[in-house]
Amino acid sequence: MFKEIAGGVCAAQGFRAAGVHCGVKAGSSPDKNDLALILSEKECAAAGVYTLNRVKAAPIYVTMDHLENGVAWGVVANSGNANACCPLSHENAELMCAAAAQSSGRAPEDFIVASTGVIGQTINISAIQAGMPALAEGLSREGSDAAARAIMTTDTVKKELALSLTLGGQEVRLGAIAKGSGMIHPNMGTMLCFVTTDCAITQEMLEDALREVVGKTFNRVTVDGDTSTNDMCTVLANGMADNPLIEWKDEDYFIFLAALEHLCRALARAIAGDGEGAGRLVTCKMTGARSEESAERLAKAVVGSSLVKAAMFGADANWGRVLCAMGYSKAPFRPEHVDISFESAAGSISVCRQGDGLTFDEELAKKVLSEKEVVIAVDLHEGEDSAECWGCDLTYDYVKINGDYRT
Amino acid sequence: MFKEIAGGVCAAQGFRAAGVHCGVKAGSSPDKNDLALILSEKECAAAGVYTLNRVKAAPIYVTMDHLENGVAWGVVANSGNANACCPLSHENAELMCAAAAQSSGRAPEDFIVASTGVIGQTINISAIQAGMPALAEGLSREGSDAAARAIMTTDTVKKELALSLTLGGQEVRLGAIAKGSGMIHPNMGTMLCFVTTDCAITQEMLEDALREVVGKTFNRVTVDGDTSTNDMCTVLANGMADNPLIEWKDEDYFIFLAALEHLCRALARAIAGDGEGAGRLVTCKMTGARSEESAERLAKAVVGSSLVKAAMFGADANWGRVLCAMGYSKAPFRPEHVDISFESAAGSISVCRQGDGLTFDEELAKKVLSEKEVVIAVDLHEGEDSAECWGCDLTYDYVKINGDYRT
Repeated sequence: MFKEIAGGVCAAQGFRAAGVHCGVKAGSSPDKNDLALILSEKECAAAGVYTLNRVKAAPIYVTMDHLENGVAWGVVANSGNANACCPLSHENAELMCAAAAQSSGRAPEDFIVASTGVIGQTINISAIQAGMPALAEGLSREGSDAAARAIMTTDTVKKELALSLTLGGQEVRLGAIAKGSGMIHPNMGTMLCFVTTDCAITQEMLEDALREVVGKTFNRVTVDGDTSTNDMCTVLANGMADNPLIEWKDEDYFIFLAALEHLCRALARAIAGDGEGAGRLVTCKMTGARSEESAERLAKAVVGSSLVKAAMFGADANWGRVLCAMGYSKAPFRPEHVDISFESAAGSISVCRQGDGLTFDEELAKKVLSEKEVVIAVDLHEGEDSAECWGCDLTYDYVKINGDYRT
Repeated sequence: MFKEIAGGVCAAQGFRAAGVHCGVKAGSSPDKNDLALILSEKECAAAGVYTLNRVKAAPIYVTMDHLENGVAWGVVANSGNANACCPLSHENAELMCAAAAQSSGRAPEDFIVASTGVIGQTINISAIQAGMPALAEGLSREGSDAAARAIMTTDTVKKELALSLTLGGQEVRLGAIAKGSGMIHPNMGTMLCFVTTDCAITQEMLEDALREVVGKTFNRVTVDGDTSTNDMCTVLANGMADNPLIEWKDEDYFIFLAALEHLCRALARAIAGDGEGAGRLVTCKMTGARSEESAERLAKAVVGSSLVKAAMFGADANWGRVLCAMGYSKAPFRPEHVDISFESAAGSISVCRQGDGLTFDEELAKKVLSEKEVVIAVDLHEGEDSAECWGCDLTYDYVKINGDYRT
């Protein structure tokens, strides 16, 4: 139905991007990009989802304001400072947009603005203003990589992906860059993700698709249970693919939706696997549930449990902690029906049947849990619904990274 | 109003206790007690609160059953195995009570039973049965220490405390032992705590007092956000102090309530400070709140945040994480009114006023946060209510302890 292609956030027609180092954070390496720009050559239908944290960074409010009319032309984003909870944060978020506008010949309201980094310190807006002309000048069809790097903080790998699909005989492309490693938790727009597409789609359909997809992808990731003040996922659609306009939930809409979900799931998994200090990607597959909602709640509790995460770090088949986490999730289930197994490339091992422990080969369990990707598979034996959530192990490095992030 | 005295769970008249090593966990050190018994020489009014985890260990159900008539004579408890989620768990919990009854001349239904340790492995009931006669024989007025040690798992310090107060001219005593280090989180009866008193009080008043106190003490502790399957806090009152019977919420009731709260708060703080791998006790004092409930929710979110905990480990004054955690707590407040400071024996430092960061002396902040006990003080400037919650820092040792707890 669709295939992965190169180009990231610039794969879709009419989108250019760039990333530079401008020195947002004092003393940061000149090799580390910290300012990103994405620009479309045509006006885009635009939609966004944002953190549900009551404390929202200024760029969130400014972006909400700029997207009120449902259209935008581009994205300006920095790492190195969250521009949250500090004097002049709102003014500085507007100044970022103004600088982007001035250098690119657009209006400030045409921009989505995002920041990520430390909370509570006034952002170095002069550095951003000084860096903007070179950033805009560098905009190109090859700029996705530089932009993706510019929004990384403690991320260890760059997150970008693009897809090609066919709608009404026309090739449509969809691309994204994302970042996220710490302060990541479900129930929100999660981390930063900027999606671009040349699909012709109404703003209303775009918004519906984004909300549905985020709920099933980014909102099913947890690294540390902390919901950030700056999370945002936006999509820009400039219509340049010339496919028949998607105006309602027809077949084309569902193809587009599936492609968007594929894109966002891949990035969500990348974020979980690259959780701060993480050694492995941990997936919890909850099946046999009465509803998708309860399956999701149970699976989230499992991947969110500090004790499960620490056990995964130790490759310890401590399935009691899995059942325990399900127990405090507040979702209904019968413990006495539950089967649990661990699965990975190294094999599969059943550890609990109908709520009681099984005798199992500890050596094989250790092998299964020592892989880079591990699945905790739970069958509730109560219904037909299921959900998958993603997290990572809790390691010494998580503690190290976060014990001394600010200074 | 009351003073701390020696004697722990045996301080109140008529209570004896003992602890022995019986070998619940294969290969455990013979120096580590793992079986505890507490016995009153008179029937006691009894009350308990239990874990709200949907997955409850068998001893929880058996204790609920035994306390249905509101009376009990004693407590039998083991460490080394949670007796949860394994074949024969219910039968074995009953067998523990039967063994205690046989060795002490009581009925099985007279006992509260509790277990703590690994989930999902069938308990070694033979070891418990074999150890019981010596345990009962060892019952003494000096047995609190041995019993307190017998319920420890990853605890590094023993938790016991006793108080003396005067009611109607009579000395009344109140004592307790507790354990708890990992798998600790609010919203439940939390960990194991056994309180004894010679106070004359009806079962109804005792139950009310226990519920009120647990809500303000143990339920305000979090170590790792994981609610155990085995948590329980019980109180036994044998009436031997001969004070005028507390039958309603008169002055004596409130004196007793205050003493019980003092006792449980001290043990709750001891549990938080002895969190798995913890280097410091972290208290969040939330003041100026619209309601105690919202103050509690906000303070709990702060002490429960992995990022705040990791910052406390690093003695890093990263107050943005404090505000961020408050933001996702789901309690209402205005970020732009919030003041935050850090306090300890080394001094006090303001870091945020009206939601914006202050410039502060980083060196002093480091000194303040390097103490064994640290307070995060937040003023919401919205009302008169307040609450205090307790937690600890997140350290390498937490990860180490939990990466390899089971094997």
